[in-house]
Amino acid sequence: MVEREAAELFEEFKELTASEFFRRNKQMLGFSGKIRSLTMVFHELITNSLDACEEAGIQPDITIDLKRLDKDHYILKHTDNGPGIPEAYITKVYCTMFAGSKFRNIQSRGQQGLGCSGCVLLSQMTTGKPAKVVSGYREGGKDKGLKGVELTFKMDVKKNQGLILDRKDAEVTQTGVSIELHFKDVSYSLSEQGAFEYIRRTMIANPHTKIKFRDPTGQIFIFDRATDIIPPLPKEVLPHPRGVTADDLIFMAKHTDKRRFRSLLTSSLSRMSTKRVNEIEEETGIDLNKRPRDMKWEEAEKIVELFARMDFMAPPTSGLIPIGKEQIDKGIREILNPEFAATTTRKPKTYRGGVAFVIEAGISYGGDSGRLVGDQKKAEIMRFANRVPLTFDQGSCAITEALKSIDWKRYGIRDLDNAPITVFVNIVSTNVPYLSTGKQSVAPEPEILHEVRQATMKIARNLQKYIRAKRAAKEEAMRSKIFENLVPVIIREAAVLAETDVPEYDSVLAKVTRRAKFENIPLESEEGEDES
Amino acid sequence: MVEREAAELFEEFKELTASEFFRRNKQMLGFSGKIRSLTMVFHELITNSLDACEEAGIQPDITIDLKRLDKDHYILKHTDNGPGIPEAYITKVYCTMFAGSKFRNIQSRGQQGLGCSGCVLLSQMTTGKPAKVVSGYREGGKDKGLKGVELTFKMDVKKNQGLILDRKDAEVTQTGVSIELHFKDVSYSLSEQGAFEYIRRTMIANPHTKIKFRDPTGQIFIFDRATDIIPPLPKEVLPHPRGVTADDLIFMAKHTDKRRFRSLLTSSLSRMSTKRVNEIEEETGIDLNKRPRDMKWEEAEKIVELFARMDFMAPPTSGLIPIGKEQIDKGIREILNPEFAATTTRKPKTYRGGVAFVIEAGISYGGDSGRLVGDQKKAEIMRFANRVPLTFDQGSCAITEALKSIDWKRYGIRDLDNAPITVFVNIVSTNVPYLSTGKQSVAPEPEILHEVRQATMKIARNLQKYIRAKRAAKEEAMRSKIFENLVPVIIREAAVLAETDVPEYDSVLAKVTRRAKFENIPLESEEGEDES
Repeated sequence: MVEREAAELFEEFKELTASEFFRRNKQMLGFSGKIRSLTMVFHELITNSLDACEEAGIQPDITIDLKRLDKDHYILKHTDNGPGIPEAYITKVYCTMFAGSKFRNIQSRGQQGLGCSGCVLLSQMTTGKPAKVVSGYREGGKDKGLKGVELTFKMDVKKNQGLILDRKDAEVTQTGVSIELHFKDVSYSLSEQGAFEYIRRTMIANPHTKIKFRDPTGQIFIFDRATDIIPPLPKEVLPHPRGVTADDLIFMAKHTDKRRFRSLLTSSLSRMSTKRVNEIEEETGIDLNKRPRDMKWEEAEKIVELFARMDFMAPPTSGLIPIGKEQIDKGIREILNPEFAATTTRKPKTYRGGVAFVIEAGISYGGDSGRLVGDQKKAEIMRFANRVPLTFDQGSCAITEALKSIDWKRYGIRDLDNAPITVFVNIVSTNVPYLSTGKQSVAPEPEILHEVRQATMKIARNLQKYIRAKRAAKEEAMRSKIFENLVPVIIREAAVLAETDVPEYDSVLAKVTRRAKFENIPLESEEGEDES
Repeated sequence: MVEREAAELFEEFKELTASEFFRRNKQMLGFSGKIRSLTMVFHELITNSLDACEEAGIQPDITIDLKRLDKDHYILKHTDNGPGIPEAYITKVYCTMFAGSKFRNIQSRGQQGLGCSGCVLLSQMTTGKPAKVVSGYREGGKDKGLKGVELTFKMDVKKNQGLILDRKDAEVTQTGVSIELHFKDVSYSLSEQGAFEYIRRTMIANPHTKIKFRDPTGQIFIFDRATDIIPPLPKEVLPHPRGVTADDLIFMAKHTDKRRFRSLLTSSLSRMSTKRVNEIEEETGIDLNKRPRDMKWEEAEKIVELFARMDFMAPPTSGLIPIGKEQIDKGIREILNPEFAATTTRKPKTYRGGVAFVIEAGISYGGDSGRLVGDQKKAEIMRFANRVPLTFDQGSCAITEALKSIDWKRYGIRDLDNAPITVFVNIVSTNVPYLSTGKQSVAPEPEILHEVRQATMKIARNLQKYIRAKRAAKEEAMRSKIFENLVPVIIREAAVLAETDVPEYDSVLAKVTRRAKFENIPLESEEGEDES
């Protein structure tokens, strides 16, 4: 065999754009399998609409129309009433990967700058058809300046940018974006991982949203909002000292406009006062009046090590906006129409020392709770992160792990899998620790596992009381029934034996049985909040 | 709540480079968890060295030195004897993401242009230290022109390129690359998913390789090559018509220098003769003399649909280079030192109609086979794709699924989990259908499942014969032992009774027991290759 020279081997060396890269690796965007691919498209578009509405302070109103043209050829039209996209940004949003406005330390649904452009890429790869976007947006104040534009474009993958085929002014009556995309090699499904279920779950976690969905058979589903309260806009919070690495400090120092490291620290991190900075200076012996760019790695590392030993207040939780137990309750009642539901929102906690998070949980019983397998009801676990349904990789998720670790028998549920219940868990955080690329499962941080368990056990106790009371009432009703049936016979026979008239017994009997019913509902003592 | 305008929301819109993106999403590169992160680094560097040596026709000789400076601070020095990297390409290889020379339809270990630059990124993110590379390479023929250069550099993540801190000429005696990287927040482990096991498995699938490894305790492991045969260089094969999509055809048409679509087809696809092209023209009614750029999506789609109905020869398999059953046998014997081993390499098959693949399997029993859990031996499944060990996501992999579906009791193994065996499976293909981003599991295509089952059942039968024979021999030996112990006593007692001398019986007895041993080894009929 002849050895080949390096120069020859490197002749074919080339660089790909992000779009070219993901064209070759679309599974990295979650596009694998027909059902999953379509669900991911719904996910990206809905998530984007909800984030945009929330940022703009608008109550979301989304219309989705999915038409089937052919076996596996669909047209998806997705319309929202968000703030719209200024013309100059439209192709950037939809055709440039790694571009976005959400790369901040904020609790938002999407964060990667890949979602929308990924949908356009998939559409183009499977059908060759261009995307069509109509955007209505305001420029220069509320009353003047509602502009409308319609763009038809393709993605130039070699350049990672849009290629506009057609542009015209559009008449619009409100702000918002409407996008039309063709897809092949995808499949609409009613299964647990399908697009329909994705919408249903989104509605439970976002009860302030309205979604109108026309499915491929032409049937129209209107998921109405269960509440008028728009969730407050999460604030961008400064990272907590316990949550930063030396690399983060150096990166901040490199790209700051502050002139001293001291002011960089107080302005870029939360819980960082002048007093604190002085302590750091004293403990580490580093001169913090130096210019940020002069900060050495070893010094950054020393500071981070000190952070781990210093006592800080927990991170500010103003950046965390939970759904709230009342809102979850409304969402569950609207969508699952249950016999019983209980919900809870825990207090903020932190994982890895400095990242704040909140766990919320709901449990519902009866009605449309659980999922129907054949003609049997099975338990259903609905996982959410920042209100976004997590549909895949259930097995490896902290939420699933925590739920399976609970001793459900203690709560009157002999066999979790076969109970007609739905368990809802939402984790709220500026930094959800996702396990995988597709952001479909949460890493099993001990603090998160603990909180999911506590939240769920609390509402499971409420469910247990309900089930016990229901069972007791049923038994009691049966006993009363027997009593009501027997007593008249005895009275009549007794009257015959005594050779007297049958006395008037109805009112007395009613009193007795009613009392019996009330007396038999078991009283339970409130249990403490934390249990092991 | 005040509504905000689109323009205001888009003020913060920005584009990230690939490096910035992965700095924020390092789990997408497989860097999650301390043990896994270090194993991924070993994986990327070893894979790159093996590919480079193979492409250059060199017998790989790799030296890895892992020093622990502090609790979780390591220095890794990785040296190979490959063709080296020309100076102009060094920072591109190590600092530019999505850059590489392997974006072809060729069976190679790495393919994403992310590996090496990912290691540099992780090093920089966890330690802030620069990377140091010494490259020796030839320019202009074998004898003249061995050049050596040493570069010290960082990655400029905002620019997705290298930033050279220091450059000097280096004295080198041979070609090859040596890279030195610092890491923190990683952990060296002897576990199944750790770096050491990764090397061990690499050796089994690449018995032509030599690896010298110095572990953090200073112990030196020399994994010697078990064979001198360098695997032939896989050829780049043209895609099979059944394996291309309409998008692929349009993409080819856009970036070709051919002047007619007709010649694009014959030159870009395998099994595509002029006769075939004429058939396509006739069947579809499309004028194939048109310029490639004039090809419409609908026409490309029509052609792809026709491909699905036409009879084609299977894809050429010259692009597939299996390890070979003899070589796997050598690898297993070198590393596992087993009592018994059997290996097989199946004939090429295709999945999804047009992608060729080969399954190879090996089974070994006794010696260092299986993995030790406590003081008990458990079965060990070693999965490989194009000779690269797959370490994570075992549960979702087609190889695991196929192995679990086999009725092992039929092969004398009552409980697969608790048998002291190692099962080795390698899939060879230009397009391994990976399930996940990290390329750690294979999609369960029906043809792949079938082939893994067939290959494994074949060698399991050989193992069964060995185990049966071994068991029979052992029982026979026991029986013979009893015979040998009893007969002398009977003879002596008989002699006493008969009042004669004890006769000479040793030679007669030996003859009898030896015959008995041979007679009792069960004969088995050869079974057919395919079973359901």
